[in-house]
Amino acid sequence: MAIPYPHFIATEKAAMDAGLLLPSSSRSPSVIFTQDDLKKIAAYKAVEYVESGMVLGLGTGSTAKHAVNRIGELLRQGKLKDIVGIPTSKITHEQALSLGIPLSDLDSHPVVDLAIDGADEVDPFLNLVKGRGGSLLREKMVESACKKFIVIVDESKLVNYVGGSGLAMPVEVIRFCWKFTAERLRKLFEEAGCVAKLRTFGEKEEPYVTDNGNFIVDLYFKRSIGDLKVASDAILQLAGVVEHGMFLNMATTVIVAGELGLTVKNK
Amino acid sequence: MAIPYPHFIATEKAAMDAGLLLPSSSRSPSVIFTQDDLKKIAAYKAVEYVESGMVLGLGTGSTAKHAVNRIGELLRQGKLKDIVGIPTSKITHEQALSLGIPLSDLDSHPVVDLAIDGADEVDPFLNLVKGRGGSLLREKMVESACKKFIVIVDESKLVNYVGGSGLAMPVEVIRFCWKFTAERLRKLFEEAGCVAKLRTFGEKEEPYVTDNGNFIVDLYFKRSIGDLKVASDAILQLAGVVEHGMFLNMATTVIVAGELGLTVKNK
Repeated sequence: MAIPYPHFIATEKAAMDAGLLLPSSSRSPSVIFTQDDLKKIAAYKAVEYVESGMVLGLGTGSTAKHAVNRIGELLRQGKLKDIVGIPTSKITHEQALSLGIPLSDLDSHPVVDLAIDGADEVDPFLNLVKGRGGSLLREKMVESACKKFIVIVDESKLVNYVGGSGLAMPVEVIRFCWKFTAERLRKLFEEAGCVAKLRTFGEKEEPYVTDNGNFIVDLYFKRSIGDLKVASDAILQLAGVVEHGMFLNMATTVIVAGELGLTVKNK
Repeated sequence: MAIPYPHFIATEKAAMDAGLLLPSSSRSPSVIFTQDDLKKIAAYKAVEYVESGMVLGLGTGSTAKHAVNRIGELLRQGKLKDIVGIPTSKITHEQALSLGIPLSDLDSHPVVDLAIDGADEVDPFLNLVKGRGGSLLREKMVESACKKFIVIVDESKLVNYVGGSGLAMPVEVIRFCWKFTAERLRKLFEEAGCVAKLRTFGEKEEPYVTDNGNFIVDLYFKRSIGDLKVASDAILQLAGVVEHGMFLNMATTVIVAGELGLTVKNK
């Protein structure tokens, strides 16, 4: 990539590009952007990397949905052609279908030119935590098949270390003896003050079930878990674990939208 | 363990212990044992390690079923008491229930004193291939929770290297884009001449579905895949893979029944 690291664009300029602001001198000099505005600004910037003829990984979540909407819009306007979308979840599949984006899957298109997706955490080395939306496994399958993977976040997602937001690092586990697996996960990170909780939903607190029919155990860390590659292998070596939400060494570009501007970080 | 490595017992003596032969001088001097006889001899030897009060991992397959039967018999005879069995598959659960063996699971009994199970391959370092019967994941969960893990095989299961029998090394994968995952697995072991095949059953060749609702991709190797730990981590790092059938550094004792005798190998 020719873009220097990090590349900075004033938020108001990016907002104009995203159609959130008019390029007019008549507007108020201090504009307040909502978190969703920032997500949209990052998403629109990412879609500038999309070219006609590409096979595209379509992300899942509140930030990625802006990118998928934008791709649909550019296709309708004829500014993009011959796009094939590979959705990372059932919900993104539905969204893309409704926008008329032609869809396929990894079995038919095992090489993906570019994927655009959000993240729950981004550390200084562009390692990610994903899967608070529950789609970590399909996202990881698609995004590990990508030549380029652009991550789009608002600045609240930047952390000093994985788990540093105090929010969950999700692990997809098989249902069989999930309590046993959760306890083994907790013990693995005992020194980091780990708490392991089954993800539930609704008033009855029923287990959340992934697109693949599995459960999710959310891990919360009080301190850094140290070497992430070592942690990843240790988690994956536990029989009963299907996948975890750390995306290590996968993002090629991270676009961060903040109040002060848009930052583009490249690997 | 006090038993030297390897410990050898003449097959006829072991067969008498297993009730397959009468300790009589009137029988024919050359006895032919079937493969199932050998499996039973190894299984009965393994059950000698079982003590009253133990939490026991109950294996799956044609060799393990002899051990489960024997444990049921000793319970009925009052020679064993206060056993809790942790079955490694739905089929073993049914077998143990029918024998009146009290059952539990890893959620309630996360520490297992002893597991007894068969294997499809045993290499010179006591690494195993398991899962041709399809239960690799639950077996691995139970057997990785064991203080002692006794493997029982007839001598046809001994190999020089994992995959050396020419038979399958199974990998449990999620259904989503399984072809993509199978192709990534094949490529991982391209240098070993790997062939990857979806496991099917019946005339219609429908995909075989595991107890956990997943598919199995069987890998066949023409040559050794090299460092097994490296291979294991590479397989587990593929998103879409749930577990593989290599049981590395898990068996504490392997009992091999052959025409010439019973060999007990300890770690």
